[in-house]
Parts: sequence; structure tokens; C-alpha cells
Amino acid sequence: MSETKTLFQAFKQTAYQAGGHGKRDVGILKQAIKEVDGRAESDIYGTGKLIEDFQDKMAAFLGKETAVFFPSGTMAQQIALRIWCDKKGIKKVAYHPLSHLEIHEEDGLKELHGIESILLADKDRLITLEDVVSMSDNIACLLLELPQREIGGQLPEYETLEAISAYCKEKGIKLQLDGARLFEILPYYQKTASEVCDLFDSVYVSLYKGVGGISGAILAGDKEFTEESKVWKRRHGGDLISLYPYIISSDYYFNQRIHKMEQYYHEAKELAALFNGCQNVSTKPKEPVSNMFHVHIALPKEKLEPILVEIYEAAGIGLTSYLKEKTENECCFEVSVGDAYADLPKEDLKKTFRMLNIKLSEMKNVSPSI
Amino acid sequence: MSETKTLFQAFKQTAYQAGGHGKRDVGILKQAIKEVDGRAESDIYGTGKLIEDFQDKMAAFLGKETAVFFPSGTMAQQIALRIWCDKKGIKKVAYHPLSHLEIHEEDGLKELHGIESILLADKDRLITLEDVVSMSDNIACLLLELPQREIGGQLPEYETLEAISAYCKEKGIKLQLDGARLFEILPYYQKTASEVCDLFDSVYVSLYKGVGGISGAILAGDKEFTEESKVWKRRHGGDLISLYPYIISSDYYFNQRIHKMEQYYHEAKELAALFNGCQNVSTKPKEPVSNMFHVHIALPKEKLEPILVEIYEAAGIGLTSYLKEKTENECCFEVSVGDAYADLPKEDLKKTFRMLNIKLSEMKNVSPSI
Repeated sequence: MSETKTLFQAFKQTAYQAGGHGKRDVGILKQAIKEVDGRAESDIYGTGKLIEDFQDKMAAFLGKETAVFFPSGTMAQQIALRIWCDKKGIKKVAYHPLSHLEIHEEDGLKELHGIESILLADKDRLITLEDVVSMSDNIACLLLELPQREIGGQLPEYETLEAISAYCKEKGIKLQLDGARLFEILPYYQKTASEVCDLFDSVYVSLYKGVGGISGAILAGDKEFTEESKVWKRRHGGDLISLYPYIISSDYYFNQRIHKMEQYYHEAKELAALFNGCQNVSTKPKEPVSNMFHVHIALPKEKLEPILVEIYEAAGIGLTSYLKEKTENECCFEVSVGDAYADLPKEDLKKTFRMLNIKLSEMKNVSPSI
Repeated sequence: MSETKTLFQAFKQTAYQAGGHGKRDVGILKQAIKEVDGRAESDIYGTGKLIEDFQDKMAAFLGKETAVFFPSGTMAQQIALRIWCDKKGIKKVAYHPLSHLEIHEEDGLKELHGIESILLADKDRLITLEDVVSMSDNIACLLLELPQREIGGQLPEYETLEAISAYCKEKGIKLQLDGARLFEILPYYQKTASEVCDLFDSVYVSLYKGVGGISGAILAGDKEFTEESKVWKRRHGGDLISLYPYIISSDYYFNQRIHKMEQYYHEAKELAALFNGCQNVSTKPKEPVSNMFHVHIALPKEKLEPILVEIYEAAGIGLTSYLKEKTENECCFEVSVGDAYADLPKEDLKKTFRMLNIKLSEMKNVSPSI
């Protein structure tokens, strides 16, 4: 049995988990549809009250004219970029080197749409206004991910966003928001979704991150844009006869959790401080700006894993189910705070971090590289 | 209010419907997940027991090495054709002029994959061996739809299928089965799914036609093919974090209905005979070869609609919710027999057709064009 499997198994056996909304099991769906009238009619190929009501609700929340429900963000964003490229007659877009489109989609944007990507900024930092202004390529669209997940969920200053938006408007570059975690950043910016979205021509939000639905995404923009997106949705094979299992659960958990984003944000800061209080541990960002952050621990994977397994078994709280090797001597993992955090027994949480600090202090002191 | 809306509304108000499995409402999902343990784990990006078990079950049923669950057949089939085109280095495939790919997918195959389609046969007849043999283009793949839905669900002789399959094998042309309604034709052919699929390199089946699930499709073939299809599934945005609402309902209704296909087939023949017994009515095919057929009535739409509305209100059985204008003097609609047929009160069904025959006999006698 591999070490990784052991950590994964130990995590699954913990009574409590520090991140997330609890287990991703069928109970999530059962809970969401419990109160729905069985006679409620299915959506049919993107039409019907059930899908249209939810789309209208999301459009209003995001402050856009119209919104379309998609099975996935992968599909929604490729389509958004394709529409803007076709409109401009330029098959080039720009985004961060660690954008979902670049590293998690098997090059769908290139293979299906023939769109070339210009990578802005370095892998380990945010896109700046200077990156955008100094770009030599002529692009149709710039995609900004808020927060930038793969570097721990970092955010630019709001003024930077405004400046990039103004620049793009001036230059005729369309601006697409990868808002997979848009709801989660609103407490930090102290802005409404609508205010943030107003800086962008088109917007994608996910419904199973902070919201905790089952699957699904919203793509929003003006009517011409979203109507065209429906045609592409059909081309992609995403215009399913029935999307209601995802829509019902998206709506249910949106209503449950949209007002809890501020709570998750404060809890993420609290949890990050606990990690930063331990020897050889640091979080990225140091102080979270949403419900998420990355934890870096300056130990080789094979040394860290048994320590975590021991702590999980002793204190009953799982911190992570996996470790990613950053270097030979450093591991990292992602934490997204959700409903589970508030349920943690505080004494067990203290015990967890007391043990972690002691165990890590016993190891040869190696500072994390970040 | 338009005439069409009136027919649609009258249909929706009937107590019974001649076709289908009953209303497509949220109750379908509620019923399917009722007995599932809420602690059952979600599939995660195509992995996990829930999705793998169902894929294995479908692979075994279809007699293929492996199977992959897709959110839609549109996605599954474009991907199948793309894989075969890439393998052969030829961006050309052949299929029927009324294939789903040609008329219902907004040209996804061309727009996303750059694949050209060669249309075989005429719109109103099946593809023959001669059509395939005399094709001058060099193609990567031939797609055959069984039954050919848009012409009433017709089927070639089984010997023709075998001959086309043998010819394709000899010529190195890959053969893809559009088996949206594969389960529904097995009683006519008196073959197992596995026997039919053995004639094809790759196979798609739908899980919400005769099976009556919510959405979803299976693509099956050898391991190399299906592994590649998973990469394309991700590119298309179809590799959802959770597909379980569709998988659970597909499995539930597959188990409920896979043994009823013979019953639906016989009931379809019975129902078609009732239609054919009326003046100015004929079905296509005359005797169904699956659970489906088309009904052609030699009357203008504006004359037929009030007749149907009157019959629905008098006898309580809905025959169709829509009429398609075939010509100025002829309408048609599709019937797919499912669970609903067995529940029809036989006296009301007799009354329905007695009324229909009388009403249609009163009209000026115009023979249907088919």
C-alpha cells in the first residue's frame, strides 16, 4: 500500500475535516431535492421555468443582462473565449500560465477551437496592469481568474482590476472573468458581485466550489453573447435534455451559503493563522483573501505523511487528503473553508495544531521556500 | 393563443398519453434515488465506484471491452468520430442525411472538429450496402443509426448490416453505431446487444430514450478508444466532477425497463395498427420494428388540430403534443411506446380511435403522400 493511500485513508476515517462542506456523497442531492415537488417539470433543452428562473436569478445577482446554465465551467469558458475570438476575428487570448484552461483541460481551447493562448505574468505571481499593457500580441480577449487558485487564491488590488478593465475597454480587448470562486472574494473586496462583474464583458461562476452544489456553472453577459453561447453549448454536447439535478442543487445550496461567504473568509484567516503558528509551515497567501489558501510545509513527503496520519488518528480532524511535492523537501496542499470548519470541536482543533507544531519542531529545521 | 399551443395544452391536460413513460418531471429523479444510500460516494471526474460499476455493466451488456459514461450522445458521437478521423488521418465521415449530427447539433462536428460529412442515401430511405460501396470519398468512419429515427425508426435487414460491417472491415473504414435506440430494436432483430455491437468498432447508446433516464449516454469500444474518449470528454467540458444524478437514474431505469423492450415493440405494432385503421392515416414504418414510428395524417394542420383537441377532451388520451407540417395537406408526429401505453384504459383507447376515424372520414378524402 502506498504512503499516499495511507494518508488518504486516514483522512477519510477522520470524524471531522478542516476544509470543505463535508463529504461529497449522494446525500447532497437527496437533501437538495427533498422539498422539491415531484411534479415540477424538467427543463427541456435549456427551456422551461426551472432553468429560466435560475438563470434570471443569477443574471440579476451578477448584474448582467442574461445568464446561461452550463454543465461545466470548462465548457462555459472555452465558449466565451471562442465567441469573443470570432467576433474580433483574432484567434488569440491571454491568461495566467496556471489558468484552468492551460493546465486542466487537455488543451481543449486549442484542440477544439484552434485558439492560441498568450501566457501573462510568471507562474508564481498575479497578472499586473504592466503585463497587460506591455503585451505585444494582438488578442481578442483577456481572461482574469479571481482569485488565482493555483497560487493559493491571490487577488490583485481592486484598483488594479479597475485599471486593467479600463485599459481593455480602451483597446477593444474583451475581458472575461473566470469567477469560479467569485462569491468567495466579495467579502475581501467589500463589493457586490454586480460591481465586480461590471468590470468584465462576460463572467463565469461555479456552483460547486463555495456554493457546494453538485456540478454546474453560469455564463453571464449581454443577450447577444449568451444567445450565441447557447448555440455553442449545443455544439459541445452540453445542451442536455435535462439539467435539473444540477440546477435544483445549485439553487438550494446557493440559497444556503451565499450569505456565509464572509464567515468562510474569516474562518480561513483563523485557520491560516493556526498553520502559520507551526514550525516549518507557511500559507500562501499569508493572510487569505477568500475562503481558500495553500499550505506549504518544509518537509519531504515521506516524512510528513506519517506525521499527519498520526495526528488525524489522535485528534480526529483531517487537514488534507493529499500532499503535493513542491520540491524534494517541501510539500503543499490546498484548503477551502466551508461549512465543515464551524463544526470542528475547538479542543480537537487546538490539539491538532499543538501536535503538528511539536512534530514539525522535532524535525530538522528547514525553512519553506516561499 | 396559437393553435399549436392549444394542442400542446390539451395534450398536457389529458389523464393518459399513448406514448412515453409518463411526464418528465422531478419525480423521475426522486424515484431513482429513493433507495440509494445517502452515504454513497460521488463519482469524481470520471472515477469512483459509482461510475466505474455502471460503465463495467454497460460494457458487458454491449459486449465491448470498456465503456464511458457521457452527459450526452452529441458529445459522445462527435468524439468517437474525431478519434477515428485522427487515427486514420482523414477528416471525413459518412452518415445519413437526417443523422442527429447533421440536423440537431448546430454543426458541432464541423465547427469544433473540422470534420466533413458525406451524406449517404436519400433523406427518405435507409443507407444500403450499395450506397457504401459506391461512395467515391475516402472516409475514416461510417456512422449507422439503428433505427433511423427521422424516417420513423426504420431498420435494414440484419444481413445488410452484416454485409456493410464486413465491407467496412475489409476497407479499413471504422464503423460507429448510433444506437440511441439500440435496446429498442433487439426484439425485432432477435439479437443480443452484444451481437449487434460486435458488427461495430464503437457504439453509443442513450439512457433516456427507451430506458427513460434523465440524461446521459454510453460510448463503448476497446480500451485504447475509450481512454482517448476520456481525454476528449475533458476537452469538451463533459468530464464533470459529478455525474452521479444521471448515472444513478440511468442504472435504475435500465434495470426497470431493459426487459420491457419486447413489450414496447409489440405494443407499438398494436398502436400503429390502430392508427392505420383510420381514414387518411398511415404509419411509417407500416409495421414498427422497434417501440417507435411516425404517424402521417393527410390533413392540413389547422384542420387536424381542433379534431385532436376534441378527441383528447372527450376520451382523455393524448396521442401527440405537436404536429409537424409535412406538406400543406399533411401532418406527422412521432410516437415512442413506453410504460404509459400499458396503463391506457382500453375502452378509452377504442373510443379515441373510433372518434379519430369518424372525424377523419368526414373530411375530404386525401391520401397521405407516403
